Amino acid sequence: MASLTLALRRTAPQLRTQSFRNASSSMFMRAITTETTKKPPTAILMTNMGGPEKLDDVHDFLLNLFSDRDLMQLPLQSLTSKWIAKRRSPSIREQYAQIGGGSPILKWTRKQGEVMEKILDEISPETAPHKHYIAFRYVTPSTDAALEAMKKDNVKRAVVFTQYPQYSCSTTGSSLNELHHGIKAAGMEDSVDWSIIDRWNTHPGFIEATASLIEKKLKEYTPEERKDAVILFSAHSLPMSVVNRGDTYPAEVGASVQHVMKRLEGKYPHRLVWQSQVGPSAWLGPQTSDAIEGYGKQGKKNLVLVPIAFTSDHIETLFELDLEYGELAEKSGVTGFKRVEALNGNEIFTRALADIVKEHLDSKQLVSRQWYLRCPGCTSEKCKDTREYFASKDSTQ
Amino acid sequence: MASLTLALRRTAPQLRTQSFRNASSSMFMRAITTETTKKPPTAILMTNMGGPEKLDDVHDFLLNLFSDRDLMQLPLQSLTSKWIAKRRSPSIREQYAQIGGGSPILKWTRKQGEVMEKILDEISPETAPHKHYIAFRYVTPSTDAALEAMKKDNVKRAVVFTQYPQYSCSTTGSSLNELHHGIKAAGMEDSVDWSIIDRWNTHPGFIEATASLIEKKLKEYTPEERKDAVILFSAHSLPMSVVNRGDTYPAEVGASVQHVMKRLEGKYPHRLVWQSQVGPSAWLGPQTSDAIEGYGKQGKKNLVLVPIAFTSDHIETLFELDLEYGELAEKSGVTGFKRVEALNGNEIFTRALADIVKEHLDSKQLVSRQWYLRCPGCTSEKCKDTREYFASKDSTQ
Repeated sequence: MASLTLALRRTAPQLRTQSFRNASSSMFMRAITTETTKKPPTAILMTNMGGPEKLDDVHDFLLNLFSDRDLMQLPLQSLTSKWIAKRRSPSIREQYAQIGGGSPILKWTRKQGEVMEKILDEISPETAPHKHYIAFRYVTPSTDAALEAMKKDNVKRAVVFTQYPQYSCSTTGSSLNELHHGIKAAGMEDSVDWSIIDRWNTHPGFIEATASLIEKKLKEYTPEERKDAVILFSAHSLPMSVVNRGDTYPAEVGASVQHVMKRLEGKYPHRLVWQSQVGPSAWLGPQTSDAIEGYGKQGKKNLVLVPIAFTSDHIETLFELDLEYGELAEKSGVTGFKRVEALNGNEIFTRALADIVKEHLDSKQLVSRQWYLRCPGCTSEKCKDTREYFASKDSTQ
Repeated sequence: MASLTLALRRTAPQLRTQSFRNASSSMFMRAITTETTKKPPTAILMTNMGGPEKLDDVHDFLLNLFSDRDLMQLPLQSLTSKWIAKRRSPSIREQYAQIGGGSPILKWTRKQGEVMEKILDEISPETAPHKHYIAFRYVTPSTDAALEAMKKDNVKRAVVFTQYPQYSCSTTGSSLNELHHGIKAAGMEDSVDWSIIDRWNTHPGFIEATASLIEKKLKEYTPEERKDAVILFSAHSLPMSVVNRGDTYPAEVGASVQHVMKRLEGKYPHRLVWQSQVGPSAWLGPQTSDAIEGYGKQGKKNLVLVPIAFTSDHIETLFELDLEYGELAEKSGVTGFKRVEALNGNEIFTRALADIVKEHLDSKQLVSRQWYLRCPGCTSEKCKDTREYFASKDSTQ
């Protein structure tokens, strides 16, 4: 009741000349209303696969990852996932140990979320206050935990905001299927007005942030080295079975690259290459590692690696690009090997995140038209159900 | 000498008052100069793979195609190419017979070239006159014939203009290697100032022409059908060996698609799919045919096919898309199957061709920086030599 007392104390003198009864009762009511029905926040639910924060989280992270049938289909998956997680844990733990004992993705997502919500309060006062929630697919905070927090905050309006610029069924698609399940389980189907930012691969703020980080890195070269520099955009690869099913990710990454290069006025030659292939099946190439070796053989000395499909550092940048490929570059004679910083706490980027949400809120669109179209080779009932659920809430469908 | 007589007859009366000797000698000299050293045209060399104009050209077209080691490497290629050309000729002849007895690519390229050169004369008078030449890779007019014609016209400045919007080693790359060989054979290394337009996959005029043709086609639907319409951008596929070598074509096609969809304000869901796969090796997917069947199964009735990597009709549009896939669509329950017109004689497109050349001439660039970078997996000496040759003429290299 402290705020009521304060409100009464701060009453302007002229009001005190009114009938005490009227004035005090109206002020009392206003104060009571503020107290008990504080305007709930517009929720921004930031979705991502996530990464293990501590070494002891590695096993469960892998188990959840290999259990996700939206990401991969394995024979006898509930058994094989356990076996693979157990088998791969030691080496993956070792990789995380080498990058400081865990993934910094939660730290960065929190920071991005905090800055984003502050900017949003300024540029979109009509939807303020804004509050970010984080839903990771394979580690905590989980989707269910995020939904629980939103429930406690009495959220009525929520924007699901994928933290993957380019859409893939394996990442954003999997998170949305999980969310659909979570919304039903938490009984939040009618209490919340949902909408989705499903891709933002060519948003000018994202492109600008990436391009400016590339320019910053290029400045580390001498003019002579810079003249010879090659930009290698590196994105997580996909199995060809996913590409051939019709996943839009490769084309969307290609479009991101073209936009960044246009912003850099085509001053440098570049290639889009693909990293993190595992297992015996065919994946989309060229592999980042092969490209480094290939350009080494062609006598290229100055390669600039750009993570184009991640928004913060994780194992793929800190271990794979920096350590593993750094060593490979050295062996390949690439003396000027550099890796462009991840977007992390970059100010242009956090501003872009806020702009993307603001533009989405203004558009009044539930989700892009593109999202409703399943892949031509899709046979997933989950993908179908998730789309049908959101379409049933969408007046344009 | 008719023009000299005419020039003398048209002399303004006031000039006749001058000393006859001075006046007539200066006019005589000017006329002589015009007659003997007429300003040679700025050549626009339009390169393309080409297609057989008549059924009797089919065999040689196939033989040249299967002999091209820039396009594919076959064991004992000089023998195998003959065998395949002979074996495949009857069925390919039959396909050309069904689309009117030959490829219309020469007709359309000529028309595009004629309109382009007229517009160029207007918008770039400082480089006028402009004249187009056509160099097809596998049929006449050949690169050598085009170079011979340019020699006759005393060409001093030539712009090589690939007619493939998106760069691939298999198309534009092959033409440039052939041209490099031809320039040397014709002794045109120093007599001509060469430059190259190597890709133009997101040029606003190309995007506008494509988008407006899609809009035109969509108007054929009822509003209800249009609401359900799916746009399928179809491009010629590439073998995965070429993709994994680092060919930039898939990413560049992806960027074209994204630009067209941005111009269409994301109003329709879409997919990029790949056609014309042959042989037993792995090619980039999803296949256009699989996508048609898949969407048929998902209950999609209205599919709009868009040729996104061809600038005029040929066998891949008139036979494969219209006839073969038209039939497949019918079988798959896709009742509203439509194919967007090829760019052919489209006025926005021919204007775009002129704009692309004008912007290139103004840029004073020999070729894009991107072109100098070979694929990371490239082992072709020809690709290396062609780049080294043009780099030796390029002051920025």
